[in-house]
Amino acid sequence: MSKIVQEVLAANQEYAANFGDKGALPLPPGRKFAILTCMDARMDPAKFAGLSEGDAHVTRNAGGRATDDAIRSLVISYKLLGTQEWFVIHHTDCGMQYFQDAEMGELLATSTKTATHDGTRWCDHADGSGSHEGRYIKWHSISNAQAALQADVERIRNHPLVPRHIPIHGYTYDVKTGKLIPLAHA
Amino acid sequence: MSKIVQEVLAANQEYAANFGDKGALPLPPGRKFAILTCMDARMDPAKFAGLSEGDAHVTRNAGGRATDDAIRSLVISYKLLGTQEWFVIHHTDCGMQYFQDAEMGELLATSTKTATHDGTRWCDHADGSGSHEGRYIKWHSISNAQAALQADVERIRNHPLVPRHIPIHGYTYDVKTGKLIPLAHA
Repeated sequence: MSKIVQEVLAANQEYAANFGDKGALPLPPGRKFAILTCMDARMDPAKFAGLSEGDAHVTRNAGGRATDDAIRSLVISYKLLGTQEWFVIHHTDCGMQYFQDAEMGELLATSTKTATHDGTRWCDHADGSGSHEGRYIKWHSISNAQAALQADVERIRNHPLVPRHIPIHGYTYDVKTGKLIPLAHA
Repeated sequence: MSKIVQEVLAANQEYAANFGDKGALPLPPGRKFAILTCMDARMDPAKFAGLSEGDAHVTRNAGGRATDDAIRSLVISYKLLGTQEWFVIHHTDCGMQYFQDAEMGELLATSTKTATHDGTRWCDHADGSGSHEGRYIKWHSISNAQAALQADVERIRNHPLVPRHIPIHGYTYDVKTGKLIPLAHA
């Protein structure tokens, strides 16, 4: 068992030992809202948005992008589990701003080891482990942070399976301060 | 401004006021691992797995399924940001076990209001707001929880863009106890 697995299971044992009455929480989110945000390690949505267990759905992917899968999750969230208000939260210094889709395809074709960044560009050396599959994937990299957030809010807003009455709030989380900054609508 | 937005921003203000030195955290996850899990409101991955800000990537969707988008996120996670170990964590009493894909398509075609469940089945009444779009979406509903977890671990394991050296740990989170239970390999 790896060190990480041991650490996670030890933390879990402690959490479960102090679980209290959380085992009685109902399935639908008590505060009837959902957050779509980035997988970034520096962000803890429960902490920065004040969530307790049972409060809200939290969907996360690379970039907090409004992908088909994020929309799948949000539609299940309101249709079967009753959320009535959504947040889309991107953040400053997002990894998605530091590469381009075509670059990612080339890096993966070169090697499926972790790439390095020399301060200017991503570097990889061919080691026979690469796969062309990465060239066929849309990576949803971000060139303009404000435009990406706006586009993601709009995509969800205009999706045929998203009802008009659900407000969609766009925010940027500042990783330097922990603050949520509202999207300034164009 | 809605009550929910006011509450989230008030919680965020308090979090940012006590942000400490977290603004200096680097982008790549410090503990070099990633978790893929469900958006379920009852689960707080940081709490049940012992994560501090900066430790690990957390990707979440409806069901914690190994969708194309989850794999996109995991590949970015190791290729550009250096994670070397992954957890796939499903959970007991998952909403994805309480409907079937075809049913979801019909419910959305009937109405884009929240459906109700009468204890036996989902109910909706036609109100002119429905959309056929839901019939063309794969919802990734779950009929056998163990099989779904096993399939998701295997899909990631066998994906051409996932290197062999990354361990993938399958677990089920028990919402009644807060405990992580390892996948019993078939």
